[in-house]
Amino acid sequence: MRLADRMQQIQPFFVMDLLARARELEAQGRSIVHMEIGEPDFPTPSPIIEAGRQSLADEKTHYTPALGLPSLREKIAEYYQSEFNLAISPKRIIITPGASGALQLALAVLVNPNDKVIMTDPGYPCNRHMVRLFEGDAINVPVDAESQFQLTPELLDQYWSDDTVAAMIATPSNPTGTRIDKKQMRALIEKMKEQDGLLIVDEIYQGLVYDVENFTALSVSNDIVVINSFSKYFGMTGWRLGWMVVPEALVDAIDRLSQNIFLAPSTPAQYAALDAFSSKSMDIMHARRDEFKRRRDYLLPALKALGFKITAEPQGAFYIYADCSQISNDSFQLSNDLLEKAGVAVTPGKDFGEHKANQYLRFSYTQPIEILQQGVERLTIFIQNSTRGAV
Amino acid sequence: MRLADRMQQIQPFFVMDLLARARELEAQGRSIVHMEIGEPDFPTPSPIIEAGRQSLADEKTHYTPALGLPSLREKIAEYYQSEFNLAISPKRIIITPGASGALQLALAVLVNPNDKVIMTDPGYPCNRHMVRLFEGDAINVPVDAESQFQLTPELLDQYWSDDTVAAMIATPSNPTGTRIDKKQMRALIEKMKEQDGLLIVDEIYQGLVYDVENFTALSVSNDIVVINSFSKYFGMTGWRLGWMVVPEALVDAIDRLSQNIFLAPSTPAQYAALDAFSSKSMDIMHARRDEFKRRRDYLLPALKALGFKITAEPQGAFYIYADCSQISNDSFQLSNDLLEKAGVAVTPGKDFGEHKANQYLRFSYTQPIEILQQGVERLTIFIQNSTRGAV
Repeated sequence: MRLADRMQQIQPFFVMDLLARARELEAQGRSIVHMEIGEPDFPTPSPIIEAGRQSLADEKTHYTPALGLPSLREKIAEYYQSEFNLAISPKRIIITPGASGALQLALAVLVNPNDKVIMTDPGYPCNRHMVRLFEGDAINVPVDAESQFQLTPELLDQYWSDDTVAAMIATPSNPTGTRIDKKQMRALIEKMKEQDGLLIVDEIYQGLVYDVENFTALSVSNDIVVINSFSKYFGMTGWRLGWMVVPEALVDAIDRLSQNIFLAPSTPAQYAALDAFSSKSMDIMHARRDEFKRRRDYLLPALKALGFKITAEPQGAFYIYADCSQISNDSFQLSNDLLEKAGVAVTPGKDFGEHKANQYLRFSYTQPIEILQQGVERLTIFIQNSTRGAV
Repeated sequence: MRLADRMQQIQPFFVMDLLARARELEAQGRSIVHMEIGEPDFPTPSPIIEAGRQSLADEKTHYTPALGLPSLREKIAEYYQSEFNLAISPKRIIITPGASGALQLALAVLVNPNDKVIMTDPGYPCNRHMVRLFEGDAINVPVDAESQFQLTPELLDQYWSDDTVAAMIATPSNPTGTRIDKKQMRALIEKMKEQDGLLIVDEIYQGLVYDVENFTALSVSNDIVVINSFSKYFGMTGWRLGWMVVPEALVDAIDRLSQNIFLAPSTPAQYAALDAFSSKSMDIMHARRDEFKRRRDYLLPALKALGFKITAEPQGAFYIYADCSQISNDSFQLSNDLLEKAGVAVTPGKDFGEHKANQYLRFSYTQPIEILQQGVERLTIFIQNSTRGAV
């Protein structure tokens, strides 16, 4: 069967094979420590679950408007007000089937064939595939620990060309957990204005920041697209619900497109999410954030002590992007060895791009500290054995 | 803000403005009979709702695999076995975020820029927009009551060109409620084989057929893509859950793409849908189908008596596509007049294409018979007045 050309560039996540192999080993009775999963271990907070259950009991199962329940759009606007002291019109807030749906809508209304979109390498792999989906070209800019694995105004200048229409950044970022502070954000937005391109800011890990201020790029500018999600901070991964805030000039086009490609976001998810901003839910989210911080504060020095180099301090999300070159210069092989020989699953750098990918592993701290400790013990033994040449 | 060129062709549903105006009139206290809505008036059957509520109580809120819960894929395979006596491997069954998600996946893995996809005019409007989304060209084939508003082998021959890669059909169809019988299906599939193109069969109204055999195109061939949904027959519109059955050669590409653009379909929706095939749920669905039949059997002769020409008998879905040329030769204006002057909301033909669109209105029978009767009374008075020249 002949496939469309784009399918040659749209790759699976390599970690999927690893996960399948891990499940196989577990079925054989092996214990595996999962540090590869980009999903909180916690279920959805109970007040949100209850709101979802109640809406089902009330038979709220019909379509909502394509842009989402007006009441949910208003709740999100109130959240920007209370959390960031920002007045965002609910009209500019669009509810989507996950942040993935938001990204699809944003790129489909903006990107013509062969248009270029700048993003980081390493970065979230779906971004470049989504640009390819609409026949655009992702420009993968190699970034390193020196710039916190983030774009800079200088890099934007360097990689910009006449057919570049947008740049994407993520703060905190997957896979690095690094963020962009207000000053850097202002400089990036200034540069984008100069280049007359649209900045798309992925804030899906917003709220999951440790020791630093929680802020949104919307406090710097309204002329950007901000993508957010109920998945990570609000613990609603499986519900597939996200949102984006867009300049008012984009709302009509996004409405048209969303009607056609999604009809509407999930109704039960939207009714459940109405409770996501309640004080009861927020208390749970704050406690979880504190727990993620404790995990990071445990795992970060532990990995460093094992010889992983982590020079760009992760300040958010639940990831550590660790340079493993002192242990191996083939992180893909290393991730396979760690699974088979040590029973530890981690994600190889090549899932996030090509730039120095073979030097890096991503560790997720989406497991309780006791499990992370077990993982570290196994890593310790593995590394001791391998430096002795026993592996 | 510069939009992508595709947005010039991706139109909103015209009925959306009409619906907004209807809501406005209702807010002013006017009574409106809604015969424009393409969604069952019934909520999700209670056993399905209960299964969804239970899964939430069990905290099943994490991601599922991109292709869907294995247990749900198996349930659907069992359904093909029990309902159609067909053995379909669960591997070929892919769970999607609505039939919209299925259509997106199917087209994205198949359609290169400028590739052509044949479809009917009139037809479901999102189809041509979805092809445009991926830079393909929809070839809208004018069809009339003579061919039951369906494609024929002759039409396929006539409109096929070297860069045509696929054809789309829908049975029962929106907006016409007409279907394709087994003999016609066989002829279409033969022709597609001859042309070496892929047939995409929309079966989302499957099960909603009256007086005729319920069948699937899969009983004729495995080398086609069949799109189905939990929305219409199973009454799960707001949950956004569908499925498709594809040739095994397409599964890997669709898996890769779904991972990247959706991550996974909704978890609560999938757990709820596990109950969709239970005998309790099926009993409810059968009773609803019988009710839809009663409504059609009432509305069809009533519309004919009013002067609407309906020459292609609707045998499924919940739509009647009525030729209104004896009343008006501008169905768009007529739909507006019916709303404003008669308090009846219907969908204008131009939402479904261009071919004779100004002669047609789509009536949905997604309201109880008493309401439909009220609508018919209002139509009667409106038509009497307008033939007297009073309107």
